[in-house]
Amino acid sequence: MPTISQKGKKMPASPIRKLVPYAEAAKKRGVKVYHLNIGQPDIETPEVALNAVRNFEQKVVEYSHSAGILSYRQKLVEYYEKFNIHITADDIIIGAGASEAILFAMNSCMDPGDEIIIPEPFYANYNGFAVNAGVNVVPIPSSIESGFALPPIAEFEKAITPKTKAIIICNPNNPTGYLYSEEELKVLREIVLKYDLFLFSDEVYREFCYDGQKHFSVMHLDGLENNVVLIDSVSKRYSACGVRIGAMISKNKELMATAIKFAQARLSPPTFGQVAAEAAIDTPDEYFDKVIDEYIARRNVVVEKINKIEGAYCPNPSGAFYVVAKLPIDDSDIFCQWLLEDFNYQGQTVMLAPATGFYATKGKGLDEVRISYVLKVEDLKSSIKCLEEALKVYPGRTM
Amino acid sequence: MPTISQKGKKMPASPIRKLVPYAEAAKKRGVKVYHLNIGQPDIETPEVALNAVRNFEQKVVEYSHSAGILSYRQKLVEYYEKFNIHITADDIIIGAGASEAILFAMNSCMDPGDEIIIPEPFYANYNGFAVNAGVNVVPIPSSIESGFALPPIAEFEKAITPKTKAIIICNPNNPTGYLYSEEELKVLREIVLKYDLFLFSDEVYREFCYDGQKHFSVMHLDGLENNVVLIDSVSKRYSACGVRIGAMISKNKELMATAIKFAQARLSPPTFGQVAAEAAIDTPDEYFDKVIDEYIARRNVVVEKINKIEGAYCPNPSGAFYVVAKLPIDDSDIFCQWLLEDFNYQGQTVMLAPATGFYATKGKGLDEVRISYVLKVEDLKSSIKCLEEALKVYPGRTM
Repeated sequence: MPTISQKGKKMPASPIRKLVPYAEAAKKRGVKVYHLNIGQPDIETPEVALNAVRNFEQKVVEYSHSAGILSYRQKLVEYYEKFNIHITADDIIIGAGASEAILFAMNSCMDPGDEIIIPEPFYANYNGFAVNAGVNVVPIPSSIESGFALPPIAEFEKAITPKTKAIIICNPNNPTGYLYSEEELKVLREIVLKYDLFLFSDEVYREFCYDGQKHFSVMHLDGLENNVVLIDSVSKRYSACGVRIGAMISKNKELMATAIKFAQARLSPPTFGQVAAEAAIDTPDEYFDKVIDEYIARRNVVVEKINKIEGAYCPNPSGAFYVVAKLPIDDSDIFCQWLLEDFNYQGQTVMLAPATGFYATKGKGLDEVRISYVLKVEDLKSSIKCLEEALKVYPGRTM
Repeated sequence: MPTISQKGKKMPASPIRKLVPYAEAAKKRGVKVYHLNIGQPDIETPEVALNAVRNFEQKVVEYSHSAGILSYRQKLVEYYEKFNIHITADDIIIGAGASEAILFAMNSCMDPGDEIIIPEPFYANYNGFAVNAGVNVVPIPSSIESGFALPPIAEFEKAITPKTKAIIICNPNNPTGYLYSEEELKVLREIVLKYDLFLFSDEVYREFCYDGQKHFSVMHLDGLENNVVLIDSVSKRYSACGVRIGAMISKNKELMATAIKFAQARLSPPTFGQVAAEAAIDTPDEYFDKVIDEYIARRNVVVEKINKIEGAYCPNPSGAFYVVAKLPIDDSDIFCQWLLEDFNYQGQTVMLAPATGFYATKGKGLDEVRISYVLKVEDLKSSIKCLEEALKVYPGRTM
């Protein structure tokens, strides 16, 4: 029997999916499980996007251009103009989700053994993409005490080696919800220029900025045309995770000429998804107004309720739809499993994501969980009530 | 300015796409270009598939299961039963096209520096996937004289080194149209068992077998449960290239447990494409009967007409919708460009794929082109007439 690859052995399993069997077992026992573990919003996909697919009239579902349907990329140019991001259709390669866009970026910019710096906690799948590309993740710490703000410049400089090729940030951040400020991004600009690095910025939560704060993009930074790669996706923006449409955007011509070769090898991104995504650009502003209001209400409930739990703490982040909360627990993996396996409060329990999966540094995140506020306010209240009751009886409570 | 990756530099450009600007220029000059260069069929996608998408009723386009929608995988099990291929839904991981499925297979089975043996000429994008995975392609020759039959076992044994980890075949073959026989596959079985290799078999043209010949799958080979990986796609089967739905299929549990980690990192395959592909399984047999009849008629025209051209030769392959033809030319890259740049016959010309792009061995394929018979019979006749006239005046004609 031939052996599987070392790369395959190194590939991390999803930190959330390992809990799925416990959730399923809980449901079989009749326990209601609130899913605060996932990034799948319950918001409806805009009608305009769904209708475009329902009205698909072509007789043959053909390959599209490897970089994506031209009319879609042209319309994306207009979309970005609204955010004061000035690009052309040639600066865009459409991918099957941000996932594929990140792989294009990593493979085009980095060789096996190269290092990418990521403030932790970070989106767990960056680990998988890094293993896939043979790239080593170098985490630098952000902390719950500062609300997961950008680590100080000294932390970046400590982490930089001759192998460092790129930095990746997620802004607003998954899992922390933190929204990087213009000042923080200007600090990053200095580092990137000083050490001649690529800066990947995953801005798939661009629309989800709260409390009157405005999103500042890496595309707004001067003089980084050859360094910056914008990673985007329509999954969260239009609650259309299943269409699998993302993008890699850069003004670096040599980089894009390289990335398109990876795109051509896999022929084209999904046609139906592009049709939906192109139409979705016409989603009326009211859709977002409503969605943003809803998320703010949800965040407020989660943050307020968690901070009322004895021994628990949660910052009040300004973006995305996640918070990382600190809990009085010994081990978040054990706790999250225990919630599903051994606990219920009035027939209900809650599924959370152990924060350990969002840290590359072993031992970090043991007393933290990620909460996705992707449920309605009433369900969130019931969920946090479950969490509160659970913490009263959890055997591994630390204080 | 940061430098792009060595991997990116090694990534091959598409051998066909480099001719696209010349085709566009020809069209601008008013020349009609017959596209025999591509694998995009003109056949209509089955209505049943398109209607499933048009009737999509879910309010949220959610992530699907990372391995693909369960009901789709279950229905695929029934589809394969019809070909006497016995699998379960757990043996299937749906990918964004065969492209992603091949990447999953390569990354799960092979490490950077490992070698994969491929009979050449072969599907050019295998090169791109190999570079992507850091894997080295080791070509072994098949020849037009034998109709591109499987190379003798001795050629495989000569090519095997301690780094050899897999063999990949495409059956029926792109670019040659050759359909491997049961006997040939049994030879492969011996090699695979003797050297404990993975055997990837790209069978995306399964339905396209002619002259009463039946497709024999690697899944029919005994005792290779842990070695065989079936690569599949709905692109050609249902003329639905844009849906981007393929599959990686294996009974090797350890392999599938590894591959699913790569699938989870990218979350899920496209939802709309899966909806279309699931419905497409109900495509009536008459659809295929008509399509097969059409392709046989097209192939017959192409093969007959080419063999009537002085100095040209073309085998009569039994599958897919390609032939590789030998022409009296000095350099197929130059010839194919010349056809677009400097030639027309009564305002028409033809775009072909230089066979050089399908060989890994430098210098091979210079006097060969791939012809995709994806146009209607009348257009094919006009195309081959163009080719005939072109060969009369091509300055690099060799005899």
